[in-house]
Amino acid sequence: MNKQLIDQITNAIKSVMPTDQEVYPLHTPKFQGNEWKYMKDCIDSTWVSSVGKYVDQFEKELAAYTGVKRAIAVTNGTAALHLSLIVTGVQPGDEVLIPSLSFVATANAVTYCQATPHFVDCDQKTLGINVKKLFAYLETNTFVKQGQLYNKHTNNRISTIVPMHTFGHPVDMDELLELAKQFDLKVVEDAAEGLGSFYKGKHVGSFGDTAALSFNGNKVITTGGGGAVLTNDETLADRAKHLSTVAKVPHQWEYIHDEIGFNYRMPNINAALGCAQLEQIPLFLEKKRNLAYQYNKVIKSIEGIEFFTEKEHNHSNYWLNAILLDDPDINLRNEIIQRLHKEKILVRPIWKPLNELVMYQNCPRMDLSVSKDLNERIINLPSNVWE
Amino acid sequence: MNKQLIDQITNAIKSVMPTDQEVYPLHTPKFQGNEWKYMKDCIDSTWVSSVGKYVDQFEKELAAYTGVKRAIAVTNGTAALHLSLIVTGVQPGDEVLIPSLSFVATANAVTYCQATPHFVDCDQKTLGINVKKLFAYLETNTFVKQGQLYNKHTNNRISTIVPMHTFGHPVDMDELLELAKQFDLKVVEDAAEGLGSFYKGKHVGSFGDTAALSFNGNKVITTGGGGAVLTNDETLADRAKHLSTVAKVPHQWEYIHDEIGFNYRMPNINAALGCAQLEQIPLFLEKKRNLAYQYNKVIKSIEGIEFFTEKEHNHSNYWLNAILLDDPDINLRNEIIQRLHKEKILVRPIWKPLNELVMYQNCPRMDLSVSKDLNERIINLPSNVWE
Repeated sequence: MNKQLIDQITNAIKSVMPTDQEVYPLHTPKFQGNEWKYMKDCIDSTWVSSVGKYVDQFEKELAAYTGVKRAIAVTNGTAALHLSLIVTGVQPGDEVLIPSLSFVATANAVTYCQATPHFVDCDQKTLGINVKKLFAYLETNTFVKQGQLYNKHTNNRISTIVPMHTFGHPVDMDELLELAKQFDLKVVEDAAEGLGSFYKGKHVGSFGDTAALSFNGNKVITTGGGGAVLTNDETLADRAKHLSTVAKVPHQWEYIHDEIGFNYRMPNINAALGCAQLEQIPLFLEKKRNLAYQYNKVIKSIEGIEFFTEKEHNHSNYWLNAILLDDPDINLRNEIIQRLHKEKILVRPIWKPLNELVMYQNCPRMDLSVSKDLNERIINLPSNVWE
Repeated sequence: MNKQLIDQITNAIKSVMPTDQEVYPLHTPKFQGNEWKYMKDCIDSTWVSSVGKYVDQFEKELAAYTGVKRAIAVTNGTAALHLSLIVTGVQPGDEVLIPSLSFVATANAVTYCQATPHFVDCDQKTLGINVKKLFAYLETNTFVKQGQLYNKHTNNRISTIVPMHTFGHPVDMDELLELAKQFDLKVVEDAAEGLGSFYKGKHVGSFGDTAALSFNGNKVITTGGGGAVLTNDETLADRAKHLSTVAKVPHQWEYIHDEIGFNYRMPNINAALGCAQLEQIPLFLEKKRNLAYQYNKVIKSIEGIEFFTEKEHNHSNYWLNAILLDDPDINLRNEIIQRLHKEKILVRPIWKPLNELVMYQNCPRMDLSVSKDLNERIINLPSNVWE
């Protein structure tokens, strides 16, 4: 029975792959625009490091594209999350609500603030935070003191919630913002995977107090390594930028730093790559949608699995395509992955739930049964922008 | 009197500057080797991000050049220091001995470990840690318990010392290692400014348990932004690399992380730049020595100042050239800087002592009178590799 399903899935996926490749990686970048021109210009100018015109240009163009007032380019998505959490007010000892299904950086960034991740269950519909379930959980497991939310069991303040837009599929932000308002939570969007994704016509990352983007090599666009903080709040933006540049106070020559800062600024040479990549984003997104369409077409007739498609109100970037087994079955999931790897099709499962990692297994959490189910059901498919 | 001295200094420095420049920056990178070739190759390969052949090559070549067993390429010198401190065993609550005259990253990296900088005075001879003075201080202000050194006043463990090779001039490492041995301290060399500097024929950064290099845009060679951990200890190297790659346990597809890691890996595109730069280091160092020689020639006859030259046993990279006023005089120092800025010669003072920065002013410290004096005496001169 399983063998037949695995054959069906393998053949369907192979039918979508281009025939001229030896290996089908999960996601590789595409450079066919002005990458080389801008990088050469950058080298010729000698302004390759933490100051330069491409950093300014990249920040302006990112802000314009995502519809926020300010974007601050940094070394990677982790740095963007770290700064986002700090500037929105996460304090040592706080708890921060994050989905149990996310890349480990979401939890790590909380830890860098000396705060604790508090794991929240995910939702079958969006793959992101299960807002309704969380609402009920917070109602019974928290209390409010002087306008601040506290965990009834740990007595720690719960200051912030981090919705993560899984594989580029937006969380239902109306619901989430309503919950945040009800419980007085700050919102930091983890939009690391979300560049090019829209919820009700607005770009993800433009809803929270702050948001983090990533331009790692496997993302929709890349700067080698890179990320950005997005925000509509000029004060938060200024602080994020200040912290990213070792909190140096402007002076013609003196080295005065007024708080503990970070060396998180994106180098100009990486921003040059980013500017060229950003110019091609409409093309990349079109090709990614087309690939998702093709996957869906061949997969929808297979019984026992579904192809994950964007939900109502959402326009997804389809960063990573995903299939879901109808029922949780980690053995079947692994068998499918193994078979496809044999065919040089480098699929992967979703991340291991963060609460199962050794360093996070004692963190506070709600019931995480949907996340566990999803972990045993999801397989990501190659999502390259092929020619 | 001062006016005459300022005129003399200005004329001397101007006589060394090339005549075809509008502005004389403190330090700009030079790209005249294989920079374009390697970066283009890197883009064409699409391996621009955290894995790739240039990262491996850069690490191997760095290790070979500095004479250590292992080099781990990371996003910047701050990240290299942070990892170096963690892997050598700095624990939350520890104190770490660092010079009061250093870039703020030295203190910040200690803080990221939830440890406290303990400021140490500097030395007129080396501009680095004043080892003799520190020896006397530790003898009277610390005690040993179960083989560990403790601060008598705070009762915190003092685990580590961080000698910083100021402007590329090596600390007397024999003296420093003797002190470290005597007091059971781990040694993390802050060699951010030291690439190309040697102490008794051995490259700086090869003496400590670990060391940190920087390849920021203003350093001897640049990768845009970048740094490296150096060590002769394979176990520490493996752990530093593991921590720099979000502590991911190797697996064909599963996302398992076994401790709190960091996104500190140098992108391949930056390493490509680094490989090209490293090939040119003999030429860069020769030109920098020649510039220092020229500065010394025109400055040594001026009464009231001296040009800082390498000391016995040292072969300095002369990263940043420096003059010292004979006597501390912050007003004169600032007047000289202002005058030279008017002439578009972008000199700068040494860093403000870290213990004077608002976030570090309550940290433990010894008498720091030499550092204070040096801060009022030192001016860094443009140190470019001109044609």
